[in-house]
Amino acid sequence: MQTNPSQQAGQTLNGAESLVKTLLACGVDTCFANPGTSEMHFVAALDRIPGMRCVLGLFEGVVTGAADGYARMADKPAATLLHCGPGLANGLANLHNARRAQTPIVNIIGDQATYHRPLDAPLTADTEGWARPVSVWTRTAQRADQVGADAAAAVQAACAAPGGVASLILPSDVCWDEGGQVAAPLPPLAAPKVSPDAIEQAARWLRSGQPTLLVLAGTALRETPLADAHRIAAATDARLITPMSNARVSRGRGRFAVERVPYSGDAARAKLAGIRQVILVGAPPPVTFFAYPGKSPRPYPEDAQIHVLARPEQDLADALARLADALGAPAVPVPDAAAPVGVAKGAVTSEAVAQTLSALLPEQAVVVEESVSFGRAFYPGTLHAAPHDWLQLTGGAIGAGLPLAVGAAVAVPDRRVVALQADGSGMYTVQSLWTMAREQLDVTVVVLANRKYAILLGELAGVGANPGKTALDMLDIGNPDLDWVKLAAGMGVEGARAVDMESFADLFAMANKRKGPFLIELVI
Amino acid sequence: MQTNPSQQAGQTLNGAESLVKTLLACGVDTCFANPGTSEMHFVAALDRIPGMRCVLGLFEGVVTGAADGYARMADKPAATLLHCGPGLANGLANLHNARRAQTPIVNIIGDQATYHRPLDAPLTADTEGWARPVSVWTRTAQRADQVGADAAAAVQAACAAPGGVASLILPSDVCWDEGGQVAAPLPPLAAPKVSPDAIEQAARWLRSGQPTLLVLAGTALRETPLADAHRIAAATDARLITPMSNARVSRGRGRFAVERVPYSGDAARAKLAGIRQVILVGAPPPVTFFAYPGKSPRPYPEDAQIHVLARPEQDLADALARLADALGAPAVPVPDAAAPVGVAKGAVTSEAVAQTLSALLPEQAVVVEESVSFGRAFYPGTLHAAPHDWLQLTGGAIGAGLPLAVGAAVAVPDRRVVALQADGSGMYTVQSLWTMAREQLDVTVVVLANRKYAILLGELAGVGANPGKTALDMLDIGNPDLDWVKLAAGMGVEGARAVDMESFADLFAMANKRKGPFLIELVI
Repeated sequence: MQTNPSQQAGQTLNGAESLVKTLLACGVDTCFANPGTSEMHFVAALDRIPGMRCVLGLFEGVVTGAADGYARMADKPAATLLHCGPGLANGLANLHNARRAQTPIVNIIGDQATYHRPLDAPLTADTEGWARPVSVWTRTAQRADQVGADAAAAVQAACAAPGGVASLILPSDVCWDEGGQVAAPLPPLAAPKVSPDAIEQAARWLRSGQPTLLVLAGTALRETPLADAHRIAAATDARLITPMSNARVSRGRGRFAVERVPYSGDAARAKLAGIRQVILVGAPPPVTFFAYPGKSPRPYPEDAQIHVLARPEQDLADALARLADALGAPAVPVPDAAAPVGVAKGAVTSEAVAQTLSALLPEQAVVVEESVSFGRAFYPGTLHAAPHDWLQLTGGAIGAGLPLAVGAAVAVPDRRVVALQADGSGMYTVQSLWTMAREQLDVTVVVLANRKYAILLGELAGVGANPGKTALDMLDIGNPDLDWVKLAAGMGVEGARAVDMESFADLFAMANKRKGPFLIELVI
Repeated sequence: MQTNPSQQAGQTLNGAESLVKTLLACGVDTCFANPGTSEMHFVAALDRIPGMRCVLGLFEGVVTGAADGYARMADKPAATLLHCGPGLANGLANLHNARRAQTPIVNIIGDQATYHRPLDAPLTADTEGWARPVSVWTRTAQRADQVGADAAAAVQAACAAPGGVASLILPSDVCWDEGGQVAAPLPPLAAPKVSPDAIEQAARWLRSGQPTLLVLAGTALRETPLADAHRIAAATDARLITPMSNARVSRGRGRFAVERVPYSGDAARAKLAGIRQVILVGAPPPVTFFAYPGKSPRPYPEDAQIHVLARPEQDLADALARLADALGAPAVPVPDAAAPVGVAKGAVTSEAVAQTLSALLPEQAVVVEESVSFGRAFYPGTLHAAPHDWLQLTGGAIGAGLPLAVGAAVAVPDRRVVALQADGSGMYTVQSLWTMAREQLDVTVVVLANRKYAILLGELAGVGANPGKTALDMLDIGNPDLDWVKLAAGMGVEGARAVDMESFADLFAMANKRKGPFLIELVI
């Protein structure tokens, strides 16, 4: 006779309770939330059942971006809790970024009761239709006795390599109806290994003597696979590169470095000139961010061959290790770090900020970078900083940085998070500061305040236009200047303004030693 | 011989220029914008061609909500300018509200070049898929020589009664390619009048002696049709009501009043008890906002007959006038206003705020109300204020209020806008304050600071739960308290805090006399 585990103690569960218990059984113990009326039974269940850490965001873009940052650092998914279709819509931009980062997220969206939906009450919207383009898996729960199984399937789908957003839509009656059944975790769908043939084939391409580019992405950017990629490069003269934007790169002193494809199409084409073959390791073929009249959208030579060593859903670390072995490539030492330099002084430039970051970045910091135009020197200039992880805006939907910092800080509370944040982008999800204050997260926010959409002024010049008044009305975000110290204070985060490199270094060193968040408005 | 109007002066246009000229020819002369790289040719065209007022929002939810507020007051559409799929996504919640308000909006969304889309660059997303659920019309422009015609079709579609969101997706190459053709405006699609039979039928229902409810929505809530509805009510004893939330109601001293269906299902059922027939005038059948276990989602008696006088897309004012005539209903005088009362003193209550609003609301003010739980007394309590328009959150997607205020202030710069804004909801689109400062809009923002999601604490109690720590972590937005005066200052808006009715009255009177915006944080 089968025993219903939820009723072993003679106790019955409603759907919401079975959902919470199933999530906990599957190892999902953190929920970033902005609930509404239709989620009240779920909130009540979270309240009754211990074990789930709930973190409130004052806007859904904070919630979804935090879930992204959490899983990038925790290597397991958090749950979200969003309110109906429009609540999901507010979180879509950062779910788009999470999709591009291949981040596992169990994306829970409350909805009207099943029988209420056809009545088209004001909040009713096409929740499934909005969720599907960012999701690897989408399901609307139908019955209280199945929602536990739905949750287990969502966790499995989110974690299936390479990872993605699993959206579970939760009608309110499915939550409040009795008969909930706790589901056991489903077996993880591990990344399949590439075939021996694929390794041999790749070894032949690499031995061909053709100028070769190895494009690394996803989990290939962790410490061990990067070391194996460097064995391959040293043995074959292949060049290593990553896409412009990556979910997480392990880097700093004592680790192997890897360059990125430049954002500018012209610079990218110059860098990749002469390449005859491109081997993809969990990466798509390089492409420019946008199209420009008369310019190729592919930054590599048109007649280069494109090969695949491993697709994103395959085991990238294993493939690189086996390929290095197949090539008989010996281990190579990490290049010596450059001589340490002190903090920069004087005027605020991108290079000066990189130098100070290099000098002061705490050991095992998590750097969240959404620096857009000003940050051009940050990545190359911090190669020899203390070991750290570097998290980026992966999908181009600005407003990811501050939420990513929230999520990363919740995931790894023993590490300092440093958010390098452009001002225009930071305004998209400025509400993140409040969650940092509420949860007393160890985040140092550096707002790069140029008071304009600088990247767009560059792009406008690129189309051959000198900005007139109307264009400036749309690209210049001064008048009035944003005062980030006041904005932070309005949400309970202490802050200060730096106008030169000396004051920046003092504030940055002080901020990183504090408990809780601190914001530095760096006027650039 | 046909002349291409765009080439009369021997000048050629690109697609973007033909689009701007077509919009201007169609009477669309205001654009709420948050552009990105793929829209730079459109920005350059706006810059070169005079006549379009461009208003920047620092987040797309501000942009779309402002376009909604603009059209509600201007009775014609503005254009938006949004950046790619994720930029649209950020604006969807307020487009959802606009859809429920039946607001005409020409919703322009930039996108990847047609040939770049298949390459799946990081920002590429399902723009059409996200736009369609909020739109009455969706089209992706394909060629520069057709985008003018696309724009004219979008304006026509947006303005077709009752009004809606027309989404035009604009690949960047369609903008920069030469050969743009300016299109002439298409004839407006006016609201069809209801048939004589429908009028006669409705007159028979009303003469039946059955307890009857006339549900008015949309354009039936302007001054003249409301007067005609009151003629009908006086002649037949029918009761008048509107949905809980409406796009725009003309009201105040010297105008006819109309009650709303209460938000609470229990209160709504009590109010509509005994009704035998419901006649719809541009409104859907009443429905509760959410479902609750064991309660009917319809607030009227189950056996009441539902009749339709006019569908939303028909001419509601004409239908009411003809029905009143068919009933031989004489004109009725507007009831005398209650004796004027002064401003309230002492503790801050919903009723006290309503009294002070009644006393101090400027003539022809535009009230934007997103007061959620605290505002229960505002609508009934301001019946005898100076004549004004009352704009509401129509789709339940919070974060509409401040953007609506921006748009209304741009549309009717000679009228004072008063935004009655709950704090939790206000944080969703707090960036609106910056646009108010930049454009020096005459808006008085009253933030109702209860520092919690009060409506949700009520809903949680409604499901029989006493909030524990986890629930409070998700429903209490104090800890830390938001400081709205600092938030406003951070975006260039002056503000002050009121803690009793005396200080509120002083600040409110002062703020309404100023040029430009002012924010009052009313601690409740």
